[in-house]
Amino acid sequence: MVTLRKIETCNEECPVKKTAELIEGKWTTLVIRELLPNKKRYSEIKRALTGISPKVLSSRLRLLEERQIITRTVYPTIPPTTEYELTDLGKKLEIVLEAMAKFGVELNSILG
Amino acid sequence: MVTLRKIETCNEECPVKKTAELIEGKWTTLVIRELLPNKKRYSEIKRALTGISPKVLSSRLRLLEERQIITRTVYPTIPPTTEYELTDLGKKLEIVLEAMAKFGVELNSILG
Repeated sequence: MVTLRKIETCNEECPVKKTAELIEGKWTTLVIRELLPNKKRYSEIKRALTGISPKVLSSRLRLLEERQIITRTVYPTIPPTTEYELTDLGKKLEIVLEAMAKFGVELNSILG
Repeated sequence: MVTLRKIETCNEECPVKKTAELIEGKWTTLVIRELLPNKKRYSEIKRALTGISPKVLSSRLRLLEERQIITRTVYPTIPPTTEYELTDLGKKLEIVLEAMAKFGVELNSILG
């Protein structure tokens, strides 16, 4: 257990900051969540995330790829198929999403 | 343990989505992190978060207040002093920040 209550300054090495830089931004954690059970095609992610625009989804996927959280594989079908998959590093974000889910369950029970 | 790998659709009740809506946005988790050890004044939070603009900090604090994650107390000093404190609900976000810190430690060890 990292003792957050005792860390007084968030400097450049601050682990919360490092993670925040990777996952911050609207939709980012939800895109990661879609890929936790298995790899998915662009169209499958799009369909699962009601309300996301193609522009935002593409930008999130590109950022996550740059940050080595996901890989992108293009298959030479006609038309080409693009599949996204979490890297080993990306899969480790499951602990963050599990904590978010746990908090969210509590939130639903409080706010009804 | 919530079984994220088995949840196939992220609907309106999806707990990860509920939490994402609360904490998404650049700097938001870092503002919460500053308040975990104890309540702080606006100027203390500003000083701790190198690089944040007053406009962004004020907007994040306002959103967190609206979402019942923090409370704002204004003391009638000259000039007035404003203190921010996590609510009981806000304190429960510690599990999310702990998971982010844990992932961040791993990230630091991988990326060096």
